[in-house]
Amino acid sequence: MTKINLAPPSGTRDFLPQELLFRRQVLQAAQTTFERHGFLPMDTPAFERIETLTGKYGDEGEKLIFKILKRGDQAGSGEADLALRYDLTVPTMRVVSHNRHALPRIFKRYQIGPVWRADRPGKGRFREFYQCDVDIIGSPSALADTEVLLALAGVLDRVKFPGFVIRLNSRQILKGMLDVYEVPADRHGAAVVALDKLDKIGLDALKGELAEAGLPSSVAERLHGDIASNDFASVLRKRLEASEAGRAGLAEVEAIRDAVGPELAGGTIEFDPLLARGMDYYTGPIFEFYATTFRSAIAGGGRYDGLSAMFGRKAEPVCGGSLGIERIIMLLQGDAALPAAPGPTAYVTVWSPEQRGAAFKLLSAIRARGISAELDLVGSGLGQQLKMASERHCRFAILQGPDEAAAGTVQIKDLDSGTQIAAPVADAAATIERLLQS
Amino acid sequence: MTKINLAPPSGTRDFLPQELLFRRQVLQAAQTTFERHGFLPMDTPAFERIETLTGKYGDEGEKLIFKILKRGDQAGSGEADLALRYDLTVPTMRVVSHNRHALPRIFKRYQIGPVWRADRPGKGRFREFYQCDVDIIGSPSALADTEVLLALAGVLDRVKFPGFVIRLNSRQILKGMLDVYEVPADRHGAAVVALDKLDKIGLDALKGELAEAGLPSSVAERLHGDIASNDFASVLRKRLEASEAGRAGLAEVEAIRDAVGPELAGGTIEFDPLLARGMDYYTGPIFEFYATTFRSAIAGGGRYDGLSAMFGRKAEPVCGGSLGIERIIMLLQGDAALPAAPGPTAYVTVWSPEQRGAAFKLLSAIRARGISAELDLVGSGLGQQLKMASERHCRFAILQGPDEAAAGTVQIKDLDSGTQIAAPVADAAATIERLLQS
Repeated sequence: MTKINLAPPSGTRDFLPQELLFRRQVLQAAQTTFERHGFLPMDTPAFERIETLTGKYGDEGEKLIFKILKRGDQAGSGEADLALRYDLTVPTMRVVSHNRHALPRIFKRYQIGPVWRADRPGKGRFREFYQCDVDIIGSPSALADTEVLLALAGVLDRVKFPGFVIRLNSRQILKGMLDVYEVPADRHGAAVVALDKLDKIGLDALKGELAEAGLPSSVAERLHGDIASNDFASVLRKRLEASEAGRAGLAEVEAIRDAVGPELAGGTIEFDPLLARGMDYYTGPIFEFYATTFRSAIAGGGRYDGLSAMFGRKAEPVCGGSLGIERIIMLLQGDAALPAAPGPTAYVTVWSPEQRGAAFKLLSAIRARGISAELDLVGSGLGQQLKMASERHCRFAILQGPDEAAAGTVQIKDLDSGTQIAAPVADAAATIERLLQS
Repeated sequence: MTKINLAPPSGTRDFLPQELLFRRQVLQAAQTTFERHGFLPMDTPAFERIETLTGKYGDEGEKLIFKILKRGDQAGSGEADLALRYDLTVPTMRVVSHNRHALPRIFKRYQIGPVWRADRPGKGRFREFYQCDVDIIGSPSALADTEVLLALAGVLDRVKFPGFVIRLNSRQILKGMLDVYEVPADRHGAAVVALDKLDKIGLDALKGELAEAGLPSSVAERLHGDIASNDFASVLRKRLEASEAGRAGLAEVEAIRDAVGPELAGGTIEFDPLLARGMDYYTGPIFEFYATTFRSAIAGGGRYDGLSAMFGRKAEPVCGGSLGIERIIMLLQGDAALPAAPGPTAYVTVWSPEQRGAAFKLLSAIRARGISAELDLVGSGLGQQLKMASERHCRFAILQGPDEAAAGTVQIKDLDSGTQIAAPVADAAATIERLLQS
C-alpha cells in the first residue's frame, strides 16, 4: 500500500485555527481601513478564460499561470480553456470594462484575495498567496494618488507596523532625468534598470552598470557624479527645471508628499528620484513602502493610466497600490509563538445528564448576548469538564450542583482570577456580560 | 478584430460592491455565529493533489472536478496533477489526518469558502460557489449533533430567515425500519431511495416505487399501509421497539430534538422517519433544514463516523452540517432591489486648492474615529462636490468657506435632515461622532 501524502500541495498552506485567526486580524484591519477611506469591495472568480490573462504578464509571468483542463467531451484533449487568476489587477480591469456604466464615476475599489502562480516555492514565496489591492479609477489628479498612499499607510498604522518609509517618485521625473542627462532614447529602458539597482549594488558598481547599459561615457560620468554628490535630489531638482516632464513630475511628487507626510503616524515619506519599479505600465507617480527594521519592500504601486484600455475600452486614469500582505503577516508574526487559538468565553458544565436541557438553555442565553460559549460533548465528569475549560483558556466556567439546582442559581467561576459568584439562572448571562465589561 | 468577451467565465460571477456587501453580511453572520458557538476557523488551499480527491465523490462527481495542467517541462503533456477542491469536507479530513496531534481532542471547526464544480450552469447553480460548513470531530455523543444543529439554526436566526423546519432522522432508524418490515438485505438501498422520494411523488406513486425497488409485495403493502396511516411516526415508533438499531436511533433522535427544539427562535424541529439523504457515508443522525415559505432545502448534514478514516488514519466520530449559503443569500435577497452600495459617512469638501492640506488633516481625524470619510478627487467645484456627497448617500458634508477658515471652524451639514452646525476644526471629528451616536 502506498503511503498517502497528507501535506498540502507544494507551495500552498493549510491554515489551522491559531494561524488563521492571526492572518484574519491583519486582513480584517486592511478591510476596515480601506472602507474607512471610502473604498468599496469587489470580487472576481478564481479563474478566468485563458485569453483574458494571456499577453498581460510577459513571457516569464505567462509560464507561471495555472491552466485548467477542458472538461466533458474534451477532457481527453489535454487542452486548457481556463486559468487561475495571476493577480487581481487584470480581472479588475475586465470587470470595470464590463460594468463601467454601473460603477461610480470615480470608483475606489479594494480587493483582498488569493492569486495563484506556479513559482518555485521558497521561504515566503508561495503558489497560493493573498493580494491586497486598492485602486482609484477615473481621477487623473494627484489627490487620488494621495488617497491610495493614505489608505495603505492607514493599514500599517492600524496593525501597529513597527516603522516604514515611503519612497516616492514619478515616471515623469525619470523621463525628465533621461532627457536632461541626454541619455539616448534607445537606452532609456536600460538606463532605468541600471539606476534602479543602485540600492543593491552601491555607488561604485553603478558606473559599470551604466556603461553596460550602453550609455555614452560622458553621460554616465555626469549622471554618476551627480548621484555621488551629497544631495542628488536637490541637484536633480535644479536640472529638471529644463524639462517639462521633469517639472510636472516634481510638482505631482511634491503635492503628494506634502499631503501624505503630515498624516503618517508610523512612517515617513521621501522623494527617491532613482526609484523606478519594474512594471513598464506606470505613467505617473510611483512608490514603494519599506519596513525600516526589516529593510524589505512591503507595498508598492503607482499610476498606470494606460492599463484600463487593455480590454478595448476607453483609457481612463487609474492609480493604485498593493500591500505585500503575506510578507507583512510574516513580519508581524516574527518568530514569536502565536497565542493559542482562543476557546469560548464561557464553558457551561453539566453536573448530570438530566441538566443538559438547562445547560443548552443557558448556552443560548449567553450566546444571544454575543458571548461565545460551549459545553462538554462527550459526557465527561465534572473534573474533566473544568480541566477542558481551563485548557481552552475559557474565562468563565458555569457550575450548577444539586444545591444550586434546588435554589435555581448557578455559580459563575472566573478562571482568570479564581473568584466565584452566584447568580439566579435567569440572570446568569447578564451577569457574565457585566463581568466582561467591568 | 475579434470582440473581447468581458463576461466572467460560464457559471462564475463577478461581484460588484452592492451585491458583495450584501453577501458579506450573510457570510459574516455565519462566521460570527459559529464562533459564538465555539467553532474555530480553518482553511485549506483552493487546489489539492488529484489523488486526494479521486475516489471520494462517485463517478458522476468525479467528472465535475476541475483539473489543473502540469507546468514547466511537462506543460505540453496534457496531463493534470492538481484539481480545484470540490467540497470542503475531503480537504478538511486530509488536514485533520495530517495535524491530528496539534488540534483539540474535540475539534469544532467551521469553514466558509468557495468550491468549484464543472456542473452545467443554471439558475442558482454555479461552477464557483461558497460552502459553509461546521463539523465536530471526536465526539460520538448526540450532544455534538445537537451543537451542530444549534449552530446552523443560529445563523438562520441571526439573518432573520423567515421560517424553517428541521427534519431529523437517523440512519439507525432507517436500518431498524428495514429490519422490522423485513425488507430483504439486498433491497435496503433501493428501498431507502424509494422512501426518500415520497415527498416529491406522493403516497399513490410510492406503491409503484416500492415495487420497482424490488420489495416483496407483502412488505411493500405493509410499509405503504403504515405510511398512509394518520400518524406513521407513532406506528413506526412502536414497531421499532423490536429492533436494537431502531431503539438506539429513536433515543438519539429524541435526545437531539428535545435539546434543540426549545432553543429555536425562528424554526421548528420534527422527526421525519423517511428522511434518508443521498450520501451513503452517514452512520447516525441525519437532518435537513427546509425554508417554510420557499419549500426548499437550505441546510443538511449528519453523522459520518467512517469518513475520517479516508486518509488511512484511525476512524473518529464526526458529525457536521452545511448551510446552502448561496441559496440562503438568494432567498434573502429575493427580488428586492439591493440598497445602493454605501458611500462614506462624511464627505469633506474643498473650497479652494490651498485648503487641501487642511482637508486631509480633517479626513485623518474623522477616519481615526472609525468613521469612513472621503473627499473630491478631481478638483471639482463646490456644487459638484455637494452633488457627489448626496449621490453617494453620505450622511454629512463638511464645508469651510473663507469666513469659516478665518474663524478656524467648519460647517457640518447633515444631508439627511438638512440641518447644519458649526464646530471648531479641532472638534469637528468628535462632533460628527457625537451626531452619529445621537
